[in-house]
Amino acid sequence: MPYPDASLEAIDTICNNAWKAFHEYRLLSLKQRADFMRAIAQKLDNADPSLISTAMAETHLPEARLRSEKARTVFQLTSYAAACERGTWLDARIDTAITSKNPAQPDLRKTLTPLGPVVVFGASNFPFAYSTAGGDTACAFAAGCPVIVKGHPAHAGTSQMVANLILEAARETHMPDHVFAHVHGSGFEVGKALVEHPRVKAVGFTGSFAGGKQLWDWANARPEPIPVFAEMGSINPVFLFPEKLEKATKEIADMYAASVTTSVGQFCTNPGLIIGVESEALSKFIDILGEGIAATPPADMLHAGIAKAYAEKRKNALSQDQVTEVAESRNASEGAQGIATIATAPASAFLGNPVLHQEVFGPYSIVIQCRDLTEMYNLAMKLEGQLTTSLMATDQDIQQNPALVEAIKNIAGRFIMNGVPTGVTVALSMQHGGPYPATTDSRWSAVGADGIKRFARPVCYQNWSDYLLPDELKNANPLGIWRTVNDILTKDAVQ
Amino acid sequence: MPYPDASLEAIDTICNNAWKAFHEYRLLSLKQRADFMRAIAQKLDNADPSLISTAMAETHLPEARLRSEKARTVFQLTSYAAACERGTWLDARIDTAITSKNPAQPDLRKTLTPLGPVVVFGASNFPFAYSTAGGDTACAFAAGCPVIVKGHPAHAGTSQMVANLILEAARETHMPDHVFAHVHGSGFEVGKALVEHPRVKAVGFTGSFAGGKQLWDWANARPEPIPVFAEMGSINPVFLFPEKLEKATKEIADMYAASVTTSVGQFCTNPGLIIGVESEALSKFIDILGEGIAATPPADMLHAGIAKAYAEKRKNALSQDQVTEVAESRNASEGAQGIATIATAPASAFLGNPVLHQEVFGPYSIVIQCRDLTEMYNLAMKLEGQLTTSLMATDQDIQQNPALVEAIKNIAGRFIMNGVPTGVTVALSMQHGGPYPATTDSRWSAVGADGIKRFARPVCYQNWSDYLLPDELKNANPLGIWRTVNDILTKDAVQ
Repeated sequence: MPYPDASLEAIDTICNNAWKAFHEYRLLSLKQRADFMRAIAQKLDNADPSLISTAMAETHLPEARLRSEKARTVFQLTSYAAACERGTWLDARIDTAITSKNPAQPDLRKTLTPLGPVVVFGASNFPFAYSTAGGDTACAFAAGCPVIVKGHPAHAGTSQMVANLILEAARETHMPDHVFAHVHGSGFEVGKALVEHPRVKAVGFTGSFAGGKQLWDWANARPEPIPVFAEMGSINPVFLFPEKLEKATKEIADMYAASVTTSVGQFCTNPGLIIGVESEALSKFIDILGEGIAATPPADMLHAGIAKAYAEKRKNALSQDQVTEVAESRNASEGAQGIATIATAPASAFLGNPVLHQEVFGPYSIVIQCRDLTEMYNLAMKLEGQLTTSLMATDQDIQQNPALVEAIKNIAGRFIMNGVPTGVTVALSMQHGGPYPATTDSRWSAVGADGIKRFARPVCYQNWSDYLLPDELKNANPLGIWRTVNDILTKDAVQ
Repeated sequence: MPYPDASLEAIDTICNNAWKAFHEYRLLSLKQRADFMRAIAQKLDNADPSLISTAMAETHLPEARLRSEKARTVFQLTSYAAACERGTWLDARIDTAITSKNPAQPDLRKTLTPLGPVVVFGASNFPFAYSTAGGDTACAFAAGCPVIVKGHPAHAGTSQMVANLILEAARETHMPDHVFAHVHGSGFEVGKALVEHPRVKAVGFTGSFAGGKQLWDWANARPEPIPVFAEMGSINPVFLFPEKLEKATKEIADMYAASVTTSVGQFCTNPGLIIGVESEALSKFIDILGEGIAATPPADMLHAGIAKAYAEKRKNALSQDQVTEVAESRNASEGAQGIATIATAPASAFLGNPVLHQEVFGPYSIVIQCRDLTEMYNLAMKLEGQLTTSLMATDQDIQQNPALVEAIKNIAGRFIMNGVPTGVTVALSMQHGGPYPATTDSRWSAVGADGIKRFARPVCYQNWSDYLLPDELKNANPLGIWRTVNDILTKDAVQ
C-alpha cells in the first residue's frame, strides 16, 4: 500500500494548522485568492502527461474523457476565480444611518465571511473535476477557507499528484502555510476524524447516499454541528410525453442509449428511470433502446467496490416482482463488469416497491410503463428528490398537461427539456443539487460559482468607521463591485 | 383551558391541506403574494384595541412596547412584500446557449422555487414580530410557501386573534384555501407532530437552545430531513477596550444598564457577558453599572416558565466558583421575579467553567475581568458562536489590537461598534444569525428580507421555450427585475 492512511495524530495536527491558516487566509483580498486559484489552474493545465496516465491506470476511464475532465477542472478554477474577484457573490448590502427615525437607525453593512477550514472528499467518478482541485476545493478557496482534501483511495496516486501541484501553487503565490493539506484514507476512520475535528467548519462531498448520509450524521452529532453539502446521486427521472415520443421515437431512444452508457453510466446524472405511457411508440422505443444497450460492450468500472455494488444492485433490481430485463451488453464477459442493462416494469410495480426507487450506479436504466397520463402524474407526485428531471415533450404535450409538468418541476434541481441529464455545464445558471435524498440541502449548488456561498456566512457591521470596514463595504467602493445600497443595486460610491 | 391542543388527526389534515395549497400558492405571481402580505399588514395595523390589551394581559409587556412591536411587524410585512415584488431575491441567472462550444452549451436559466409548507413556532418574547404574523411567516409567504403556525401557549389568545386576521386577509385577497393554518399546543406533542409530518418542508423557530435543538433533531431524524432555521439565543459578548472605557466610563455603564434591563432582559440580543481589563476605569464602570441595575425595579416576566428558568439559572450562575454578585434590583419582592442582576468574575474562572458561557435569559449580565489584553484575546478565541459581539473602542484601541478585533469578528453574525446589541433594525443589511449554538445554520438571517431565501431553493431550466419559463426568466424580462445574464448584472431583455 503506497499511500498509508493518515494517523489520528497527523489529522489533529493538520486540522489545527488549517485553523491557524484560516486566520491569515480569510484576510487576503479577493484578487489574492483568485491569483492562487489561477496558479493551480495553470499548473494543472501544464501538468506532466504522467498525470493523465496515472488517472487512466487508476480509474479505467479513457484518455479523452480524462483530458476533457482535466480541462473542465481548469475552467472551474479560472471561472470561479473570476467570479470570486467580481465580488457579486458577497451580496454586499449597505443601509445608511437614518437619524430622523425613532429609535435612530444605525449604519448597517453586510458582506460574507468564510466559515473556516473545509474538508473535501474526493469523488471516485471524477478524479479531477470533483476531487482534489475540483469544484468544492475551488469554491472553498474562493470563499476564503483553507481546504483539507481526503483523496479517494481508488485514485490515490492521481490525487497526490494534483495535491502536490496545489501545494506548489500555494508556495509560489505566497499563500499562508497550511492553506491546503491532503490526506489518504482507505477506511472510514480518516473521514470520521476529519468531520469530527472541532477546527473543521464545513464539508463537501460527492458520492453515494450511504457515504453522504454518514458524513452528515457525524457532522450533526458534533458538539458544534457543521454544514455538510453532500451530493448523493439520483435516479434522474425522464418523462416521455406521448406526442413527442410518437414523433421522435428513434431519436430519443438513441439519445438515451448513449446517455445511460456514457462513462460506463458512472454519473450522478445518469438517467436511471424512464417513464412512458403504454403505446406502440413506447414499445418501439424500448426495442430501439434495448438494441443500443445490447450494442454497447461491457467495460471496466472505476474500481472493484463500484463494480461489486453495481453487480449486486443490478441483480437485485432485475429480480424484483414484475421487472423484466429488456436487453444487456452482448458478449458480457466475466472480465468487464460494467454490463449495460435496460429493464422494464409497469408503473404499479414501481409505485409499490421502494427498491426500484434506488439508484443502481452504473450503465443501468428501467423503463416504467404507465397505463395513462394520470398514472404518470401519480408517479411523479410520489418520486423522491432528484438532481434532475427531463421532459421529452412537444409544446402541445406541455400545454395539455399543466399539472403533470408542475409535478415534474417540483421534484428536482434542474429540469431538462428535450435533452439528456448527463453533461453538467459549468455556469452560474447551473443548479447541481436537489431535494433530499439527492443532496443534504436543496438550497445550494455543487456546480457553478454560486457554490462558493456554501462556505461563507453573512456578517453585519453596525456603526463602523469607513476605514475599518472590509473593502467591499467602504463608501468609495474601491473594488467597484455591485452592492445593494438602501435597497437599490448599484456600483456607485456611497455619498 | 380555552385553547385545546390540536389532535394528531387535526394536524395530519392541516398538513395535507397545506400541501394542496402549496401547489396553487407557489404558482401565484410575486405581486399576488405581496398583495396578500400587505393585506395582513393593513389588518394588523387597524386591529381592534383588544389585540393590544390581550397581549398585555398574556405577556406582561407594557403597552408602548407592544404597540411599537406591532408597528414593527406591520413594517416587516410591508417591507418584505416590497422586496418580494422587487424580485432581486430570486437571484435570476441566465446563460444563453453557446452552440459553437464542443459539446454545445445549452440555454440555462436559474431562479428560486419555494420549499413547501413551512411550520412557524411563535416566540414567547415577541408576541407579534416573531410569532403568528411575524418575520418567519412573512418570509415564507414571500417565498411562496403556505404557513402553519403553532401559537406560543403563553400568548395563545393574541396568537389566535392575529391568526384570524391572516385568514381574513387570505380570503379577501383570494388566496388558495389552507394557505395559512394556526394550531395550539401546550406540550411538545403538537410541535413534534408538525415537524415530523412528511408534507412539512421547513421550520422557523425563535427561542431557547433546548427548544431549537429539539426541533432540529426531530427534523434530522425524519426519513426526509428538512431544514430548520432555529435562532436559539446568545450571550452577546461586549468587549470594553481600555482607552474607550477610560474616556466614557459612565456613558457606557449607563448605556449597558439600560440594555441589560430593557423588556426585563427578555431579548435574544441581551448583553449577557461584558469583558474588560482590570483597571480603575473597569472598577468604576462596574460600580456605575451596578447602581443602574439596583435602581431598576424587578418586573413581571413573560410567563411562569421563563420566570422559573430565570430564577434557577441566575441562582446557579451566582453560585459558581469565583463569581461575585455586584448588584441586584433593590426591593426585590417575591411578586415580580425579573430581578435585574449584575455579577463579576475573573477571566480565569470564566474560561474554565462552561456554566458561565450559558445564556441566563432575563435581566442578567456578568462582567469578566481580564488581567490584560492578551487574556481578553484568549477569551475571545474560546467563545462559542453568538448572534452579536459589541466593541466599545476608540480608533486607537482598534488599531493597536488587530488580532483581538479579528478574533471578535469571527464569533458572531453582527459586530456593533460603540453601541448595544439590543434593538435589531429591520433592513436588508441586518444579519440576525450566527455560528452554532446561536443558530442551527449561520448562513441565513432571521431578520431582513434576505430571510426569504431560507424557504426557497434554486432550480435550473435547461433548454426551455421562452413562453414556458417563469416570468422572471423570460427573454423580455416582463417583471423588470435585476438578472445576471451571461455573468453581467442587468435589467435588459435578453436579445
